[in-house]
Amino acid sequence: MTPSVEQALVERILQRDRHAVGRGISLIETGSPDGISLIKALYGRAGRAFVIGVTGAPGVGKSTVVDRLIALLRGNGHHVGVVAVDPTSPLSGGAILGDRVRMQAHVGDTGVFVRSMATRGQLGGLAIATRDAVVVLDAAGYDIVLIETVGVGQAEVEISRVADISVVITIPGLGDDVQALKAGLMEIGDIFVVNKADHTGAQQAVAEIETMLEMQLDESKTWRPPVLLTQATTGDGIDLLREAINQFHAETSPLQSQRRRNRDRLGLWQLLQQHFRREIETGDVLRSGEFNEILESLSRRELDPYTAVETILEHTLRKGE
Amino acid sequence: MTPSVEQALVERILQRDRHAVGRGISLIETGSPDGISLIKALYGRAGRAFVIGVTGAPGVGKSTVVDRLIALLRGNGHHVGVVAVDPTSPLSGGAILGDRVRMQAHVGDTGVFVRSMATRGQLGGLAIATRDAVVVLDAAGYDIVLIETVGVGQAEVEISRVADISVVITIPGLGDDVQALKAGLMEIGDIFVVNKADHTGAQQAVAEIETMLEMQLDESKTWRPPVLLTQATTGDGIDLLREAINQFHAETSPLQSQRRRNRDRLGLWQLLQQHFRREIETGDVLRSGEFNEILESLSRRELDPYTAVETILEHTLRKGE
Repeated sequence: MTPSVEQALVERILQRDRHAVGRGISLIETGSPDGISLIKALYGRAGRAFVIGVTGAPGVGKSTVVDRLIALLRGNGHHVGVVAVDPTSPLSGGAILGDRVRMQAHVGDTGVFVRSMATRGQLGGLAIATRDAVVVLDAAGYDIVLIETVGVGQAEVEISRVADISVVITIPGLGDDVQALKAGLMEIGDIFVVNKADHTGAQQAVAEIETMLEMQLDESKTWRPPVLLTQATTGDGIDLLREAINQFHAETSPLQSQRRRNRDRLGLWQLLQQHFRREIETGDVLRSGEFNEILESLSRRELDPYTAVETILEHTLRKGE
Repeated sequence: MTPSVEQALVERILQRDRHAVGRGISLIETGSPDGISLIKALYGRAGRAFVIGVTGAPGVGKSTVVDRLIALLRGNGHHVGVVAVDPTSPLSGGAILGDRVRMQAHVGDTGVFVRSMATRGQLGGLAIATRDAVVVLDAAGYDIVLIETVGVGQAEVEISRVADISVVITIPGLGDDVQALKAGLMEIGDIFVVNKADHTGAQQAVAEIETMLEMQLDESKTWRPPVLLTQATTGDGIDLLREAINQFHAETSPLQSQRRRNRDRLGLWQLLQQHFRREIETGDVLRSGEFNEILESLSRRELDPYTAVETILEHTLRKGE
């Protein structure tokens, strides 16, 4: 991409041109130098969007909740960007969620932009791409960005760190194992939603989550996560979710600043580790062939991984210079 | 730990002293220098164990399958180490699975060692700790090591890369969303098990998996994953699983060598990135305070993350020297 082509793309993104926004995110996803260059150009223009993470186990109705929330936010005049992240198919590189169905609901509305992203390679890569996609949407003037993740593990936690607030969705009557899985999600949730409120056991699910929250209650915490009942198919309770998000936004300013700093720090580390690897793989910091020789010795068990790492770092880092 | 204390611990681990094995894995988990030193001492003595990964969505009966499999393997004279990995609770650091119940079943049997591990910090850290725990068990003479993971996402894929063979367990009648999640697991499975064979739809689940496998069939592949029916509560089908594992072991020698090489490579990268970070955080490769100054500029959006990374690498790597 020539500087003038990039400049034109940047201008169009800043004017919230959907086509340009989509192209920008594609450049990021492929990890191309053009994508990096684009983020460099846009980064200073971003930083205003409020980023809402929405996560939960499969089948809890995340997409329906998100769609209802988008409608509400649009009604209030917000421009909404959505990044639907699928951390579950790292090898195929295909987004299972798909923009297809999702986009259709908002096809005539230029105030909504929905994009799916799937894992390419390492999990760290997905977090980086998600963060960069948020920069593009943010710079484009989408003042609220939703990050929707499917799955129940570490990936959600990684991605939750990109958001200003995390909404965790569950449903009544999930099995014991799934309850256990929620323990990880308990710790990231700022707001809990029990969806499918019409199902048996909804009140019980609310009580269980409240009990779990009590257990981890900490006087120093400035925010006490509410547990809400919704029925996304009818839209019931989505207004309460919106209110709780507003309240969090209004009341937890120091917490949000702290999180943004943590996010910047974590993001910098992820990027630094990714690029450190690239330098070793493609740069001239190690003698050509040295890395493969070390791997050979490892395979023959003549060398152990920790000694290997010490050797490589000794040969690559400027220490005490 | 003094050299003589370490030497004594190494000797006892090599004699398969359960107490010493447990202590060794604890040293690894905490990421202490003693743990690193221990792996350096044991690495050359390991490399013989066959490592079986067992994974699947929550509630499919993984633990029961694993317990049945252990009984079968013990009957054949194998010594079995089990690492039960819980990637779902990264913040609490507590293992949900727990060794408690699991160990009780084999309490009188010195030929079985079961250990749970939970995420501490980054996912990469868990993969490193799992790999190191396998080294300890392997060196201790557990000739079969089972790695059991709970969850349905990226974590399983990361951990599956530590194993020689991956067994993916599912049950009939999981919802659509879970089916979609399985797509990620489809790609790592060498053997598929439909557990709870007595439930409605078991044959249909087998057919569905076979169809998905057909779709990704590749002539170059040397192994065609079988789909087995089991009923772990009664033990039905576990012998077939054992046979399929044997067959894989016997027939895919080049594939296994390839995987071990990939595993060594991936493991080296994970370790290298982890230690690179430690060097930057605690070493003398960056001017004191430089990292925090860069973070400050990032927060003020005067600097973008990519330029920050380029600056840090320029200041830390010996390039073209």
